[in-house]
Amino acid sequence: MTNNNWQLQPYLEERTGLIESALDQYLPAVDTLPSSLHAAMRYSVFAGGKRIRPILMLAACEAVGGDLNCVLPAACALEMIHSYSLIHDDLPSMDDDDFRRGQPTNHKVYGEATAILAGDGLLTEAFILLSNPEVWDDTSVIHCREVIHLLAKNAGSRGMVGGQAVDMESEEKTVDLPTLEYIHTHKTGALILAAVEIGAILGGASSIQRRALCRYGEAAGLAFQVADDILDIIADQSELGKDVGSDLQRGKATYPALLGINGARQRARELQRIALSSLDVFDETARPLKEIANYIVDRSF
Amino acid sequence: MTNNNWQLQPYLEERTGLIESALDQYLPAVDTLPSSLHAAMRYSVFAGGKRIRPILMLAACEAVGGDLNCVLPAACALEMIHSYSLIHDDLPSMDDDDFRRGQPTNHKVYGEATAILAGDGLLTEAFILLSNPEVWDDTSVIHCREVIHLLAKNAGSRGMVGGQAVDMESEEKTVDLPTLEYIHTHKTGALILAAVEIGAILGGASSIQRRALCRYGEAAGLAFQVADDILDIIADQSELGKDVGSDLQRGKATYPALLGINGARQRARELQRIALSSLDVFDETARPLKEIANYIVDRSF
Repeated sequence: MTNNNWQLQPYLEERTGLIESALDQYLPAVDTLPSSLHAAMRYSVFAGGKRIRPILMLAACEAVGGDLNCVLPAACALEMIHSYSLIHDDLPSMDDDDFRRGQPTNHKVYGEATAILAGDGLLTEAFILLSNPEVWDDTSVIHCREVIHLLAKNAGSRGMVGGQAVDMESEEKTVDLPTLEYIHTHKTGALILAAVEIGAILGGASSIQRRALCRYGEAAGLAFQVADDILDIIADQSELGKDVGSDLQRGKATYPALLGINGARQRARELQRIALSSLDVFDETARPLKEIANYIVDRSF
Repeated sequence: MTNNNWQLQPYLEERTGLIESALDQYLPAVDTLPSSLHAAMRYSVFAGGKRIRPILMLAACEAVGGDLNCVLPAACALEMIHSYSLIHDDLPSMDDDDFRRGQPTNHKVYGEATAILAGDGLLTEAFILLSNPEVWDDTSVIHCREVIHLLAKNAGSRGMVGGQAVDMESEEKTVDLPTLEYIHTHKTGALILAAVEIGAILGGASSIQRRALCRYGEAAGLAFQVADDILDIIADQSELGKDVGSDLQRGKATYPALLGINGARQRARELQRIALSSLDVFDETARPLKEIANYIVDRSF
């Protein structure tokens, strides 16, 4: 079935609504003690954000004909981990950012101690949720251990946290392309890969489908970061919600710095092609994944 | 069977060796990228420490006649979470401690950014380990989800992290006894309770045994903190590895501050009695738990 009226924007809005109402349900209420900690955790989770990772997880599940309700808790857990990583990355001793998405960062509102603990709380909450008996049924619970393992590995010191560590070490240093790719495949790519792979597992993917989705996830994850690097240079502050060229000011290595704007765009297009071609094994059910890959790259042109 | 030659100290040393060699095996090697992050993670895990939480987990398993090998990975995961919490608690924006157990704290050696990430890495590593297929066999894997859930809940915002958050909020404030008990049952108690409950589960405890061990864990956990508060006032700096009276200087609420030294010791004895009486359902297999409860309280007299 093809649907030429299909549009990405309403799709993203509908999915964002689904994910945000699930997040609201799964996060501890503000009146749960300690209130200020839970307020801080919720502040960053609900401070905007494109929900690209959980949307990708749902879209991967959809591509293999899975049930979205089975994957929604894992999608929320992933978004909690993404939110925690932003809180910690923004801290004064890390990237020292006062604003994110146009709003004051967590530590500017709640103070550094609470921000650190809110991050710790969100990271832990992801695993509380993923191991909650209520979010698994008799069929899906066989995937519980594997999903937790995949998410934790991609979030940890050999995944996202490792990418951030190398990124911090590389500030003000001359960074070569392999190091830059290491930073990005770990810092951003690992969680995006986990998103599509978990969507595949919980959607009941065959091994061919799962491999195809992982290939998509790797390419889309890196493309996302290349596009972000380009946007950091070309976008309005208003559009990005952070200082334009802030990576450059901070002496961070970026794709445009290493390859030039045109070289970086070429790399983004190449990754886009890999992402799209990996979807060849699917029919129209992979339409959202395809359009998301296009959206990720096209916004940097 | 009674064994009057049984001695606590050699037992603790033997168990410490067992746990430390397992930790060494389970933690990412220093030559695994990023090296400096893994060095920082290992630095704090191996910077001394009494291993009281993992030892309690093993002892609970032993009390119900379980196999120690089944519980060792979970014991290491718990110790990783304890280590992460110390790294984050010591940060300048938290307790701002330069020394712990007589050695420079993580951020003094590796810098704040790496210390935050080392904590994040250790917390995540605990869940990587607990969901690793290699640490579960066909019999024990049925407990995987429950053990992860228990550990995460007790470590998170309604457990240990929540206790630390209320502790930070309460600095320089007048704190009443219920708030102090909230701080301690969460900040210290939650992880100690998780230790014995997970030991019970993985040891194959009956529901009566499990309830008894939880009662033990609650009492021993709180006793541990009351004793620590007393020690903070009476101990030599050399003995504790931190500044004497540092809680007092920081305006932290403590049991001796609220109840006086004698009142706090009375509370410790009361908790010791509860812990010991909860072990009545066991025979000699609970000897280590009994002696640990005695050791926890007696060192504050």
